[in-house]
Amino acid sequence: MSDHPSAGPLRIRDVRITPVAFHDPPLLNTVGVHEPFALRAVVEVITDEGLHGLGETYGDAAHVARLRAAADLLTGVDVWHTSELERRVGAALSADTSTAGHGMSGMVTGSSTVHRVASPFEVACLDIRGKALGRPVSDLLGGAVRDRVEYSAYLFYKWAGHPGAAADDWGPALEPAQLVEQAHRMIDGYGFTAIKLKAGVLPPEQEIAAVHALREAFPALPLRIDPNGAWSVETAVRVGKELEGIIEYLEDPVTGIDGMAAVAGEVAMPLATNMCVVAFDHLRPAVAADAVQVVLSDHHFWGGLDRSRTLAAICDTFGLGLSMHSNSHLGISLAAMTHLAAATPNLTYACDTHWPWKRPDEDVVTPGALTFADGAVAVPTAPGLGVELDREALDRLHEHYLACGITERDDTGYRRRFEPGFDPSPPRW
Amino acid sequence: MSDHPSAGPLRIRDVRITPVAFHDPPLLNTVGVHEPFALRAVVEVITDEGLHGLGETYGDAAHVARLRAAADLLTGVDVWHTSELERRVGAALSADTSTAGHGMSGMVTGSSTVHRVASPFEVACLDIRGKALGRPVSDLLGGAVRDRVEYSAYLFYKWAGHPGAAADDWGPALEPAQLVEQAHRMIDGYGFTAIKLKAGVLPPEQEIAAVHALREAFPALPLRIDPNGAWSVETAVRVGKELEGIIEYLEDPVTGIDGMAAVAGEVAMPLATNMCVVAFDHLRPAVAADAVQVVLSDHHFWGGLDRSRTLAAICDTFGLGLSMHSNSHLGISLAAMTHLAAATPNLTYACDTHWPWKRPDEDVVTPGALTFADGAVAVPTAPGLGVELDREALDRLHEHYLACGITERDDTGYRRRFEPGFDPSPPRW
Repeated sequence: MSDHPSAGPLRIRDVRITPVAFHDPPLLNTVGVHEPFALRAVVEVITDEGLHGLGETYGDAAHVARLRAAADLLTGVDVWHTSELERRVGAALSADTSTAGHGMSGMVTGSSTVHRVASPFEVACLDIRGKALGRPVSDLLGGAVRDRVEYSAYLFYKWAGHPGAAADDWGPALEPAQLVEQAHRMIDGYGFTAIKLKAGVLPPEQEIAAVHALREAFPALPLRIDPNGAWSVETAVRVGKELEGIIEYLEDPVTGIDGMAAVAGEVAMPLATNMCVVAFDHLRPAVAADAVQVVLSDHHFWGGLDRSRTLAAICDTFGLGLSMHSNSHLGISLAAMTHLAAATPNLTYACDTHWPWKRPDEDVVTPGALTFADGAVAVPTAPGLGVELDREALDRLHEHYLACGITERDDTGYRRRFEPGFDPSPPRW
Repeated sequence: MSDHPSAGPLRIRDVRITPVAFHDPPLLNTVGVHEPFALRAVVEVITDEGLHGLGETYGDAAHVARLRAAADLLTGVDVWHTSELERRVGAALSADTSTAGHGMSGMVTGSSTVHRVASPFEVACLDIRGKALGRPVSDLLGGAVRDRVEYSAYLFYKWAGHPGAAADDWGPALEPAQLVEQAHRMIDGYGFTAIKLKAGVLPPEQEIAAVHALREAFPALPLRIDPNGAWSVETAVRVGKELEGIIEYLEDPVTGIDGMAAVAGEVAMPLATNMCVVAFDHLRPAVAADAVQVVLSDHHFWGGLDRSRTLAAICDTFGLGLSMHSNSHLGISLAAMTHLAAATPNLTYACDTHWPWKRPDEDVVTPGALTFADGAVAVPTAPGLGVELDREALDRLHEHYLACGITERDDTGYRRRFEPGFDPSPPRW
């Protein structure tokens, strides 16, 4: 469509996909515990003219295989033609019926495989468009409506260290006082003004006690709790009633749209989800059932930044709140999340991020572009995503990937190595 | 947000708004009849660098006054910053409580004033972005998924000519045979492969007879009928049952979401609307009531091309079909409609257009950029919208505007000059 002589197509010449691994502490969730390394894949897209764009996504082997299958079909696609990019990704995956490789250890399933695979390519194409124009990616998303994006302090129950290794720098967090200490350290370091607790790890009474301890220690900060569907409807309603007026939203207390709708009818606070509404197909039944009041977007599974803006507009249209979900991630994803959030007027909650759990010296981008102040990241104003690939660091993290022996995230399997009878089947309580 | 040295802001320096008028035949609808001239406003946006973008919208005096109020606040806005543009339009209109100037003679009300006013500026900004990039506007909307956009033959009941004037070239159309003749002429001239009849003009039995005559004359072409809410629920259900299997959708048989829902529950064909769902606020109640199955988008009242893509995504997500509405328009609007439709994968119906009713020699764009073949317009591939302003023609149509004495479209008032007792109040039947 752009054969006009002055149109200057920016066609994809080459795609590189590099799986990487970085150290991750033993963070607990309802399906198990984080392994010693978290996996990601770095996607590089290069155009005929040598422009270079970055994307980041899950690093599970099945996902990387899909990325590679898609990459083979992307040669010649214009970086402005998102519809064509998605069409080719769909064609590459048309014979793919496998369900592994969602990158979230079974906690989030049901997202669109095409959107999950297309996402890092779309982000890389936006990075290239921005570089070609000399504009930040936020400009390509309707323009930033804020110059800083707030993130939340993401607290985890955790072991002192990985089994067999020394205690890590953060130490153990299994008691309310330890979580309060973790929150203090995180807030002191980053200035966060909202707190999220990953729950579903201990019996609900202990987690309720932790929330009360956090509320006492941080009386002014919004609190959230996310048990990843660990509870029965009955338990969720009981916890919801006990935390009324204390948490700003209750995230995925139970699994499934029907269960969420049953809880929503009984508790006062909004219910949020990144588990039962993870693809556009889920919105219609969720809205019809009034199952959720806040959707946590995530450009990694919603098909990229432009589609995430569409999700935001749908939330706005149908009276749903909007927040943002996070997995363990590196700087390319943080930059993409920040541009998206900056350009999304109705994203009014502080976004999730696992950023503080990453070692400061482990990333694939050159340090300095992304800094936290008062709990927020300044929206990069350099062209594109505003981050640069540190190729030496990429190589180092790829070496980690090759050496660590992990090819699929498996929080459950890892935990069972130390607790053979561990059963994550919901509802756990 | 784009103070990076290489960001190259494209800031709005000047906005020109020129109301124009062009000859319009005495086309009948349920609220009255088209006046001898149709009004539009041409919006020109000029950046600091002298780049020039075009938009087109309604020409009613109240709307033009709003455009001018908004234009006063747009100086300095970057043409990529749609959110900021909308914010400033909203600020300009914050004290505006008037309801006149919707441009549609009372047939379409309830659209968002901010979106209606922002739309031509957004289109002009897209035109500028495309020109700056050397890319067609469709590239800025995710890329064209088709290289031609199909339109439908838009049939009208009509008088032979305006009262007091000679019969026009099209002649009268009040009988089925005359509509069939009108369709033949339009299809012979443009190659349309779908037919829409503007109904709500004559008693339903006569309009049903017209549809049967069209079906007999054009057995293979999809047919639609649009009475603009002229009927009661009872009448609409009766007509719907009589036309089962004959029309592809029934457009606005009654007014209001509740009425449409009542009809939808009783008839087999999809119900379409550009009357009860004309703003994002209407989608939630319409979906909840299953009131409509097809939404006719219209970038002139849905807030521009990017927001119309969002509407398309919402329709896709919530299982609604998508078509496109038209008013009497000139070439700038046809170009914008064509780029939008080309970049909207789920726009599967032939779009409405009033194009054949316009005199071929009356337009504000240089001839040749937009041509019909086989019922479709080839998507322009030149930078921006791909049309150029013909300033001499603009001046001529502005002179028409000044001379014609019409400042607000008033189909009802015009008809009452010849039929004093004419009452358009729905339901008419």
